[in-house]
Amino acid sequence: MKTKKVAIVGASGYSGEVLVQLLLSHPHAELVAVTSRQNAGQTLAQVFPKFASHPKSKSIRFAEPNAEVLAKQADVVFLALPHGVAAEYAVPLINAGCVVIDLSADFRLKSADIYKEFYAHDHPAPELLKKSVYGLPEIYRDQIKKALLVTSPGCYPTSILLPTIPLLKAGLIKPASIIADSLSGVSGAGRKAELDYLFVECNESVRPYGVPKHRHLSEIEEQLSLAAKTDVKIQFTPHLIPVNRGILTTLYLEPAEKLTDDKIAAVYKKSYGDEPFVRLLEGKSLPDTKNVVGTNVLELAWRLDPRTGRLVVMSAEDNLVKGASGQAVQSMNIICGFPETAGLV
Amino acid sequence: MKTKKVAIVGASGYSGEVLVQLLLSHPHAELVAVTSRQNAGQTLAQVFPKFASHPKSKSIRFAEPNAEVLAKQADVVFLALPHGVAAEYAVPLINAGCVVIDLSADFRLKSADIYKEFYAHDHPAPELLKKSVYGLPEIYRDQIKKALLVTSPGCYPTSILLPTIPLLKAGLIKPASIIADSLSGVSGAGRKAELDYLFVECNESVRPYGVPKHRHLSEIEEQLSLAAKTDVKIQFTPHLIPVNRGILTTLYLEPAEKLTDDKIAAVYKKSYGDEPFVRLLEGKSLPDTKNVVGTNVLELAWRLDPRTGRLVVMSAEDNLVKGASGQAVQSMNIICGFPETAGLV
Amino acid sequence: MKTKKVAIVGASGYSGEVLVQLLLSHPHAELVAVTSRQNAGQTLAQVFPKFASHPKSKSIRFAEPNAEVLAKQADVVFLALPHGVAAEYAVPLINAGCVVIDLSADFRLKSADIYKEFYAHDHPAPELLKKSVYGLPEIYRDQIKKALLVTSPGCYPTSILLPTIPLLKAGLIKPASIIADSLSGVSGAGRKAELDYLFVECNESVRPYGVPKHRHLSEIEEQLSLAAKTDVKIQFTPHLIPVNRGILTTLYLEPAEKLTDDKIAAVYKKSYGDEPFVRLLEGKSLPDTKNVVGTNVLELAWRLDPRTGRLVVMSAEDNLVKGASGQAVQSMNIICGFPETAGLV
Amino acid sequence: MKTKKVAIVGASGYSGEVLVQLLLSHPHAELVAVTSRQNAGQTLAQVFPKFASHPKSKSIRFAEPNAEVLAKQADVVFLALPHGVAAEYAVPLINAGCVVIDLSADFRLKSADIYKEFYAHDHPAPELLKKSVYGLPEIYRDQIKKALLVTSPGCYPTSILLPTIPLLKAGLIKPASIIADSLSGVSGAGRKAELDYLFVECNESVRPYGVPKHRHLSEIEEQLSLAAKTDVKIQFTPHLIPVNRGILTTLYLEPAEKLTDDKIAAVYKKSYGDEPFVRLLEGKSLPDTKNVVGTNVLELAWRLDPRTGRLVVMSAEDNLVKGASGQAVQSMNIICGFPETAGLV
Repeated sequence: MKTKKVAIVGASGYSGEVLVQLLLSHPHAELVAVTSRQNAGQTLAQVFPKFASHPKSKSIRFAEPNAEVLAKQADVVFLALPHGVAAEYAVPLINAGCVVIDLSADFRLKSADIYKEFYAHDHPAPELLKKSVYGLPEIYRDQIKKALLVTSPGCYPTSILLPTIPLLKAGLIKPASIIADSLSGVSGAGRKAELDYLFVECNESVRPYGVPKHRHLSEIEEQLSLAAKTDVKIQFTPHLIPVNRGILTTLYLEPAEKLTDDKIAAVYKKSYGDEPFVRLLEGKSLPDTKNVVGTNVLELAWRLDPRTGRLVVMSAEDNLVKGASGQAVQSMNIICGFPETAGLV
Repeated sequence: MKTKKVAIVGASGYSGEVLVQLLLSHPHAELVAVTSRQNAGQTLAQVFPKFASHPKSKSIRFAEPNAEVLAKQADVVFLALPHGVAAEYAVPLINAGCVVIDLSADFRLKSADIYKEFYAHDHPAPELLKKSVYGLPEIYRDQIKKALLVTSPGCYPTSILLPTIPLLKAGLIKPASIIADSLSGVSGAGRKAELDYLFVECNESVRPYGVPKHRHLSEIEEQLSLAAKTDVKIQFTPHLIPVNRGILTTLYLEPAEKLTDDKIAAVYKKSYGDEPFVRLLEGKSLPDTKNVVGTNVLELAWRLDPRTGRLVVMSAEDNLVKGASGQAVQSMNIICGFPETAGLV
Repeated sequence: MKTKKVAIVGASGYSGEVLVQLLLSHPHAELVAVTSRQNAGQTLAQVFPKFASHPKSKSIRFAEPNAEVLAKQADVVFLALPHGVAAEYAVPLINAGCVVIDLSADFRLKSADIYKEFYAHDHPAPELLKKSVYGLPEIYRDQIKKALLVTSPGCYPTSILLPTIPLLKAGLIKPASIIADSLSGVSGAGRKAELDYLFVECNESVRPYGVPKHRHLSEIEEQLSLAAKTDVKIQFTPHLIPVNRGILTTLYLEPAEKLTDDKIAAVYKKSYGDEPFVRLLEGKSLPDTKNVVGTNVLELAWRLDPRTGRLVVMSAEDNLVKGASGQAVQSMNIICGFPETAGLV
Repeated sequence: MKTKKVAIVGASGYSGEVLVQLLLSHPHAELVAVTSRQNAGQTLAQVFPKFASHPKSKSIRFAEPNAEVLAKQADVVFLALPHGVAAEYAVPLINAGCVVIDLSADFRLKSADIYKEFYAHDHPAPELLKKSVYGLPEIYRDQIKKALLVTSPGCYPTSILLPTIPLLKAGLIKPASIIADSLSGVSGAGRKAELDYLFVECNESVRPYGVPKHRHLSEIEEQLSLAAKTDVKIQFTPHLIPVNRGILTTLYLEPAEKLTDDKIAAVYKKSYGDEPFVRLLEGKSLPDTKNVVGTNVLELAWRLDPRTGRLVVMSAEDNLVKGASGQAVQSMNIICGFPETAGLV
């Protein structure tokens, strides 16, 4: 299988770090360049001591990001940048023939209007919104195969969309009833020197935030509306908990019809029975982030509550792997024709 | 003010430990006896090194629990026992004229039938169920004043009842709509040598459990039904998170009428505006367990979501203080005529 | 007992926060002013939500620090400032007749030369170095009683000096043999927005730092030299561990003579047997930070190793209480003639 | 390269779990059997949900341990058993021609007398002590190649021996001067349902234990004595810190001669410059467990202290990988002629 050359723009955050890790050990990808304004000139080994035993960690040096140079070096370019700056690199890289996989929120919405509503400025490259493919392989595998620009989903959205889309498509739940209560590890806030994310402020603490209108809602609701074929608004409460990695989402749903465990099981089996990265739990098992951290797997379980009539669905994922960099690599595998599980566990 | 003599039966668990701490420094209570089968013969200082600097820690020794002896020693007896064994001590102590404050679930239900449904055995002293007063001072202060047996609420129930009862009483929310998503520190599981609660099994992990029919539901629903004057069933999902202490509950509620922030604020202000241990957060503040751990305070905030029409209410408390031992001391203060905040912060 | 009016300059860091907590509940002190450049204008309740239930939290507002104003408001002023700026306030406050208790390192050294060696700039008020009293009550109680300027010891120094000074004074150990291996919680680094102290960088991590010449060495060695009556240099390695609060120090010492447990016990009993805030552990007990966090107590245990001939001494303290603010309040109690344990546990 | 069939006896503890993980993904080993008394009959997926996405997790079932059966199934057998029971399996397996790699302490000592001194009972198979090879590849690679029984080193010993053996062999340090201060994550205590290792007892706590005569001393001192060619006794203090995985050891050493950084660097470079799993840190870098957790790498740095004349050496490792299962797989790779880094990162 032909090796592809890959580069990462903005490789110094937590998602970037996991991308470096996954790509350094990928059997069919060769990491050829990493960029970072703040670390330019330093080797991978200097910035990430944990990779210092890898043979390439001393030869790969962070460069200033430059789309023209990257286009010559790489077949596939991952953008792991803060929101709002991805367009600057995506446009020239795509024009130069690179596959671009963007981990930011910049191209996740189809609608430039909703982008403006949630991000409070005009979209910098609205023409690309139509071209981008939402990089949730279990839902959009066929489109990803042919994509030039993959917009990799956010961590919260992944944990909410995978459990709900099959139910909505099958008409099993009421679209207006969706409540998503999510708990995220602190790496979800990024590697930012802010008081709120100091060890002492997060340890022995749990707190909701961004209530009631978190930015990720726009992306979640657009995808849910597509699945439900109707406009969907959901209730979403993110909480910060003192773990490094992991998201646990509990969903409260109202059945659209009389549901049984068999009916739900059938829908999930059909959707995910053969998926390597969705694990349907059986028996009494419930999701636990410690069973998925470090992997690209999303765990999923559900309970029909006979007392209330509601359906409770729970998911667990590693926010930096299935919720970010692992899923991005999964998309790369699909586009490049590699086995979808290559370089992922 | 006349000092009361107090004793603790079953003082070696986490709730018992906090009770010891609160009573050792209480201005109007004198701790005269502690009992524990497993620690009988040892001093407080030996069992709890952290109290070893307290002058009484070397003179107070754990005794075998004996109701007859305790009745002679103490005016007020706290029972911090596992579920199912409190009746054995409560009956003779009450008969001997002691005030009994029970921290177990044994007397929290009015209905012996519901007790049997949730605890799978007959109630050992059903006649006491009628006499016991539910020890939630903000709701039952007047009854607590005259109680001989106070049944102190559970940690999850406290975090759910205080936010919802005023709304139900005022008719602002639909009783059938209540969804409570709760996150608890590991001390909530008690000091039990079980694999599930080992450091390595809890750290870097978050998981739901007891879905969908947790035992605390019986107590929560009985109280909510009383407040709503109709039969209430709720959705409740507890989760275990890696902190020692603290419960964060997020409630999803559907308005029964057109709600405004002013209307909700008015109800909460009327109910809790003068309460020393309920803190209504203002402005952008949201509850955070780190702001209440070590105190008897419950933090409370709400958000009306104009997008979905739902009301989201969030509370934070220390599961061992307001959720257990602090609230029990608050009841003692009321019964004994002490200032309600004595010995509590 | 006459209440004293107290103020805190620089009350927004972790030590300042604990000072606020201790002084708000102190039976003989009245907190009258807090200052902070960054929080000026805000109330205590706004800056520290955890104190919002205290009646004074809404009436006390942070002010810009101003020595002239403070001198009129307060009898005792605590300085909880970063190193290097305490002199600016200490000089005018002392001249105006206030008692000043400084928590920074600015006045801890007697020698302006050593200050310059370790802090790389001239001391701003060398004349005050002679007047300041080192605020370690167990060693300098008599001098503290009459002090106008108390320089409260650092957290690491306290954990090292209390275990070693009695041994040095009694001539039991070789002064050149002292090795101190210390483990500190992250609050020791202060409330600073730096990447190194983010939750994700500290959790699931343990690391040494500042090897081999940490600034606190100057203060430790000056005090040890005074006790040993000879110039002492020690080996000191601080480590950062993922807890909020607590320092555990393990000391490796070589006996100067044939030692026995009885001889060591006699020295420690004589030094600390009646001290309320030093707990000599007995039997098999070893120090554990969880037994002292939240208290002003230092736990101390030792083991003579018959295999190597060395003496191993271990101490545990709360870095923010006995290692900072609690010890400062202890000094205030001594100066003001309050019971030494007032407001402390 | 010919695949070897491997089995694990006692695969339900933390070391066993990591062994399962490493062997499931090993390119040249095929995991054919796992045993566990308590989990017999269950699949790997049931016991370890985190491996449930691996294709073999549902076909491999835990069996009762039976040496005769194992000898027919496997070429290499790992023993991950509690101390004292490994001999029962090792003897028949070796006799049947299997390679045995034992992770317990049972065969780590050459001297049956020292075993009895530290373990308080006679060694069950003293004749095997002579045949076993100490599985520290960086020191005993040639002997491991031909070994039938590898006794894989303990976690603390690995963290102490790798830094000190080269210095002792080169005569750079005084053998009697070695002080090892070690900090270990809680997984080092094993998956045991004991109160001491509950989350609430370990979180926000740090404590020394096993002072001054920990069992691992016997193994450490035997190896150091071999390196120094003289009888060595060391000072060793283990501490428990609230992390899941990782050991940080700080060593205090006295030079045997005038040392320079160059001299030390030369010795370490010669010993470890080409070792894939020892990382000599450069510049200002110091070891940090978060840089090695999940890998088979030991990080090592040193500082000569000009003020005291001592040499301080620091190491970091993952106690379950380089300190246990990873190192055992490294030995397997050597014996079987696989690349030494196969299946390890």
